[in-house]
Order: sequence, then C-alpha cells, then structure tokens
Amino acid sequence: MHRVVVVGGGFGGLQAAKHLKDAPVAVTLVDRRNFHLFQPLVYQVATGSLSPAEIAAPLRAMFKGQDNVDVVLGEVRDVDLAAREVTVATDLEDHEQLRLPYDTLIAAGGSSYSYFGHEDWKRFAPEIKSLESALMVRRRILLAFEDADLEPHPEHRAPLLTFVIVGAGPTGVEMAGQIAEIARDTLPGDYRRIDPTQGRILLVETADRVLPGFPASLSAKAEQALRALGVTPLTGHAVTAIDADGVTVQAQGAQAESIAARTVIWAAGVTASTLAGKLAAAAGVETDRAGRVPVGADLTLPGHPEVFALGDMVVVDGKTLPGLAPVAMQEGRYAARAVRERLQGRTPRPFRYVDKGNLATIGRRRAVGDLKGVHLSGLPAWLTWLTVHLFYLVGFQNRLLVFIRWVVSFVTRGRGARLITYED
Amino acid sequence: MHRVVVVGGGFGGLQAAKHLKDAPVAVTLVDRRNFHLFQPLVYQVATGSLSPAEIAAPLRAMFKGQDNVDVVLGEVRDVDLAAREVTVATDLEDHEQLRLPYDTLIAAGGSSYSYFGHEDWKRFAPEIKSLESALMVRRRILLAFEDADLEPHPEHRAPLLTFVIVGAGPTGVEMAGQIAEIARDTLPGDYRRIDPTQGRILLVETADRVLPGFPASLSAKAEQALRALGVTPLTGHAVTAIDADGVTVQAQGAQAESIAARTVIWAAGVTASTLAGKLAAAAGVETDRAGRVPVGADLTLPGHPEVFALGDMVVVDGKTLPGLAPVAMQEGRYAARAVRERLQGRTPRPFRYVDKGNLATIGRRRAVGDLKGVHLSGLPAWLTWLTVHLFYLVGFQNRLLVFIRWVVSFVTRGRGARLITYED
Repeated sequence: MHRVVVVGGGFGGLQAAKHLKDAPVAVTLVDRRNFHLFQPLVYQVATGSLSPAEIAAPLRAMFKGQDNVDVVLGEVRDVDLAAREVTVATDLEDHEQLRLPYDTLIAAGGSSYSYFGHEDWKRFAPEIKSLESALMVRRRILLAFEDADLEPHPEHRAPLLTFVIVGAGPTGVEMAGQIAEIARDTLPGDYRRIDPTQGRILLVETADRVLPGFPASLSAKAEQALRALGVTPLTGHAVTAIDADGVTVQAQGAQAESIAARTVIWAAGVTASTLAGKLAAAAGVETDRAGRVPVGADLTLPGHPEVFALGDMVVVDGKTLPGLAPVAMQEGRYAARAVRERLQGRTPRPFRYVDKGNLATIGRRRAVGDLKGVHLSGLPAWLTWLTVHLFYLVGFQNRLLVFIRWVVSFVTRGRGARLITYED
Repeated sequence: MHRVVVVGGGFGGLQAAKHLKDAPVAVTLVDRRNFHLFQPLVYQVATGSLSPAEIAAPLRAMFKGQDNVDVVLGEVRDVDLAAREVTVATDLEDHEQLRLPYDTLIAAGGSSYSYFGHEDWKRFAPEIKSLESALMVRRRILLAFEDADLEPHPEHRAPLLTFVIVGAGPTGVEMAGQIAEIARDTLPGDYRRIDPTQGRILLVETADRVLPGFPASLSAKAEQALRALGVTPLTGHAVTAIDADGVTVQAQGAQAESIAARTVIWAAGVTASTLAGKLAAAAGVETDRAGRVPVGADLTLPGHPEVFALGDMVVVDGKTLPGLAPVAMQEGRYAARAVRERLQGRTPRPFRYVDKGNLATIGRRRAVGDLKGVHLSGLPAWLTWLTVHLFYLVGFQNRLLVFIRWVVSFVTRGRGARLITYED
C-alpha cells in the first residue's frame, strides 16, 4: 500500500487527507494538536464571543469513518528525504520518537506570528493564533477593564483603558473592531466607576492604509468604519519598542512617540513553520525572508516529486500566494488529486489558484470584500462574511452553536464567553 | 444607604445579591472570578461534552440591570468583624488592597476538595471543581488514549487505559460513567491500534456502597448501572497512596493492592473555604472537621447578627446540610429576605431548608433520584436530571447551547469539546 504522511491538520492538511478517501493509500495525519482549528474565528475567542470548542473539531472524530487515515498526535522533529522518513516526537512518558516512513509526504505546517527579531516583545504583546494565546488575550482585555474599575488613582486609569493593536491586516482590523464593540456595546452598564466607552483603541500599521492587501477604496471604507467605531488607525507608523508600559511608535521623518498602554496585541508579520526550513535545508534550497520553502508549480519540493508542501509555508513557482484558508484548501485538494493521478500513471497538471476573493469584517454590519473585482462594503459584505465563515466552519454542531451565539450577540450586544480564566 | 458586602458569586451569593434587587441597600459582590460557574456540570467539561463558557455566566452581565450591585474582582484576605470591614486583594499591578466597609456581610465562599492531609496526591489525582482543573482532567483523559495508541510496547498500554476515580459521591459516579461512555461510545473507530473499550474504569469508595448519601436501594441501582457501563466499583476500599504509577487501595482486613493507572481523578472529601476559618477565628468559635463555621438558625455568626454565612462552608444550627446548589440558593434567598425584613424593623424567622430531593446521573438514560421519598431510576430519573439541570443553568443562551450539545451527543454519541489544550 502506498504510504502518505500528511503533516498538519490545518486547512491544507485536512483537505489533502479527506480527498484521499477511498484512494488505495494508507494515510497518516500528524498534528501537534488533536483538533482542527478554524483559524479565521480565533479572534472571536480572544474577544469573548465564542468558546474554544465551537471553532475546533477533533481530528479523530472527522476521520472516524475514513478507515485509511491514522491520526498521530505528535510534533515533527525531522524529515529524512533520502530515507523517506519523518520523525515525530510524541507525548509518551519516555518521549519515545516515532518513525513514519512514507512514499508521499504532504507537508502543511502553516505559519506563526513573527516579531521581526524582537522575540522579547511577545511577552508584552501576545498574538492570536492558538486557542491558548486567544484565551490569554481574552483574559488581558477583560482584566484591563476590571483593573481600571478598581484603580483607586484616576490618573492611572488611562493606560489601563488603552488598547494597541499592531498590524492592520484582516486580523488586526477584526481585533480592533471587536475591542471597540466590547467597549461601546458590551460593557456599558457593567461598571460603576469607569465608562468603558472612554477606552482608546489604536491600530498601528506601517503601510499607509489599513488592510494593505485590499484595493485602496476598500481600505478607505474600512478605515471609515473603524473610525465610526472609535478606533484610531495610526497608519504609516512603525513600532520601535514594546514593554510593560506600552509601545513606542514612529512615523517616517517624525519623532518617536510613546503610548502608555496596558494591553498590546500583535497581529503583524508571519513566519513559516519550522517545517519549511527543515524541508529547505534537506533539499538544499533557500527559504525566503519569511522562512517559506520554494515549491514547483506542482507543489513539490525541488528534486523531490514525492514531497508536496503547501499552505502559507511555501512559495509556489516563485509566487507568494495570500496566507488564506482557501489557498491552503485548494492546495490540499490538489495534492490529494495529484497522488491519485500518479498512482494511475497520469501526470498531474500544475496547480492553479482560483481566487474567490477576500473578506474582512470590522464589526456589526461593517465589513469589506473584494470578490473577483466586485467590491462590497457595509451590510452586504458583512452578510457575505457571516455566510462564508459559517459555511466553512467544520461540523454541523459548531455551525449551529456559532450561529446561535452570533444571533444572541447581535440582538443583545452581549458576549457569552466573557470569562477570565487562568492557567493553573 | 445600608451597605451589603456579598462574598462569593456561587449559587448562594448570587441568589443573595439578586434578591436584594430594589432593596434600599448598596450591594458589593466580591468574587475571585468574573463569572458564576454552574458547578453541577463541570464534570461534563472535564469529559469533553461541554465547553467552559456554556456553563459559566459573567457576573457583570447578570447584574447589568441591577443598579444597586457593584461587582468587584478580587480575593477576600481578611474580615475585620469589629471594624465591619472586608479586605480584598485585587489584580492591580501594585497589588493594592481594597477595603470594603459593610453594614451587613453575606459570606458564601463555598468549598474545595480535600486530600485529607495528603496534599501531595493532588498532583497525581486532580479534582474537578474549577474550569481550569476540569480542562486539565480533560487533557489527561484524552491524552491517556492518545498515548496508549502510540505506545509501541503493548505491555505498557494497560496502565494508560486504566482510570481510577476516588470517591463515589455524585461527582465520582458521574465522572466514572462519563469516562465509560467515552471509551464505549465516543472513541471506538477513532483509533487504529487500540480498542478503547478495553479500558478499565475503577470507582473507589470507602463506604460499603456507591452514592452513600442516597437510599440504599438507589445505591444498588446506581451500582448496577455503573457495572452495565463497564465501571468496576471498589466499595469498602480506602486509598492509601497515590503516585505517578497509580493508586494503592486497601479493603478492611485485606492486603493493600496496587493499581497501575496513568489517570487518577479525585472526587472525595470536601473542605470549607478558608473564609469559614477566618470568620470562625474572628468570632472566637470552632470550625468542624471539614473547616465549616457554625451559624445560628438565622444563618448568622454567633454574636454577629450582621454577618450571614451560608452554603457548604457552614453548619446551620448544629446540622450539616448537604453540599448542594439548592441548599446554597435557599440560604442566599433567605439572607436577602432577612436583610430586607430587618431594614423594615421585622425579625426574620429561622431558616428552614426545603429538601426537594437528590439526583445523580450515571450515563445515557441512567440516573437515580430521591425526590421527597419517591425513588426514581433509569429513564425517568435521567429525564428529570436533564430538565432540572437545564432549568437551573444560568442564561438563556447557555441553556440553548447546552441543550443542543446534549441532543447532538445523544444522537451521535460524540463529544463536541474533545480538545486537548495546554496552558502556555
């Protein structure tokens, strides 16, 4: 039996494994976590709208009915391209490593946030990528309001009610919009000593406009929507320092400016999974600045047609595709089809990305969308965003639960998952 | 304005604060957490059926519309009965303490699990009381199956698939039943190398029957239901040691027996909140063996009619009432009514507990109930349990979400919140 090892249970790896159903292959799906995480909604966990399990689906449950998939919980330590073997570190007590031989490897390790060499900033400015970091951010945001309410010295309150989001890509814009809605819609009436609407929400972006990946007219619409919500976009500003007291920003040619803020959230810069670096080193190729490994038009590693790599850890045929779920999903399905075709003696055609568009939401009834050149904003964009995200969310139960949470939030302006939880 | 400080946002404190609505008092509700936790369902978080936010309700959201309640996030450090002042440690950066003067104090600190002087056991045998400990238990249970599946040496698998629950009160019985259902119903088909139904689930209890707080005939029914699910009750057995390798149990007059088990869960023994000890020391009275403070028939501290204490941290008029939500809720409402009556110059009548009954669930369609002498078991008891728990769960949204999760779990035998998450 042809052995396929899929590394990563994100959007790409999941599609690859699913589309190998009924193929004459034995699939091993390796992931560090026992669940698939619906990344595009993690920010809603960070802002207390959704509960973790509502945007995660257990991998084993998904592959219960697909007998040719074996799920392995562990972290890839090494890829031996010559021996065609992946080494996986497990949770076992003696830390025994597992060796998984493969005939085809599909590597989909994803990416993580990059602090541009300032790893010390991470402590003060957490990112929102994993469920754990989302829960930490949720705790920080909610505690900032609690502490402001308790703070006996009014002059110390302002930094507690100042929120800085670094990076105005879709995640940064969504976070800024959500924090504004918490302050404006959810919390008023909750406190007796502070007025949450007095909070300052700053969105810092190096580029000269928010959502730099979108057409300029939509960036303008988004900025307008952010301002209407009470968010102050600081475009054309670079962050030069972050510490416990806040951030320092600087506009080109201007003086550096300190912003006293207790809560800083990082949503800028992405770096490819270390898996990309491992593959590049093993194949003797160079990664790009963001650590991505180059693959051919058929998504395979140079010199290694048996190794597919995909998602936001690769550069496809010299082109950097957007780090979006649809890209990874299409690539995952392509890899699965390519494996099938090869087993039938056929040569797969090159991968072609079908761009279905780009959406970003800012808040209630506020979103922008660029759908194959059709520009949407306001309510139509927001409804499209809602529909698309509900549709792609994995699991009937999760769709229903998230739908209910959204309806209740919309009607009550409340947030059902406003819990401050701690790691014990 | 008459100042009421309520300590604790559990069942008792919540009812007290709610029933002071529209009373001519200023209420300050102090809790370490920003949410009310529906304790009776925490075990369902520990077993992946429910997500944390579904059984928790933010305190501020609950009191948004009740202007005379101020919620304070902090931990009570000290109660000064002479000065009528509570000192609260806050999360503020300089750890500034808050002093809350009161005219009436309502203390409802609850209880925690007691390891009977073996605090070192806690590390190996976590309890299920807080959301955090429930998530840790969930991780341990799910990882045990994952590790068993990965374990290359079959002879090492048995301890990984052995689960020991210490204490066969309602929580222990519920946990044992849930783990049995995970192994029997949820997981089969999920693993390629192990058969989860081969797991051993042992329920250790010092008394001679499970659910010792229930009538003997219902204990027998519960034991029968547990055995049908594959749980082995070890009644009449005391735990004499717990370590990383498992537990040692001993029946009276018999030899001690070692059980190799990776997962041990503690559901035995309860000790009152340290608040009870603080009040007892301040009032010059003795606590009982479980640390409970004695209060009079009107729930007030001896010599301090302005201090009510209630819930499972008190002994009422020499009687230890069961540590159940309805007891605390009735006591909380009583305290609120007593405060109102006194302000009107009336003398409150003594507190009288109305015993509405006792329910424990074992699994799908399996439960027992003792409702004012009417004994229920099987499907009727189970439906009663479901209805009562949904009814008392706080928040319309939570009720709806939990209802949906339960229906989906019942139909699919799946568990929507089977996530292994870590503290970062």
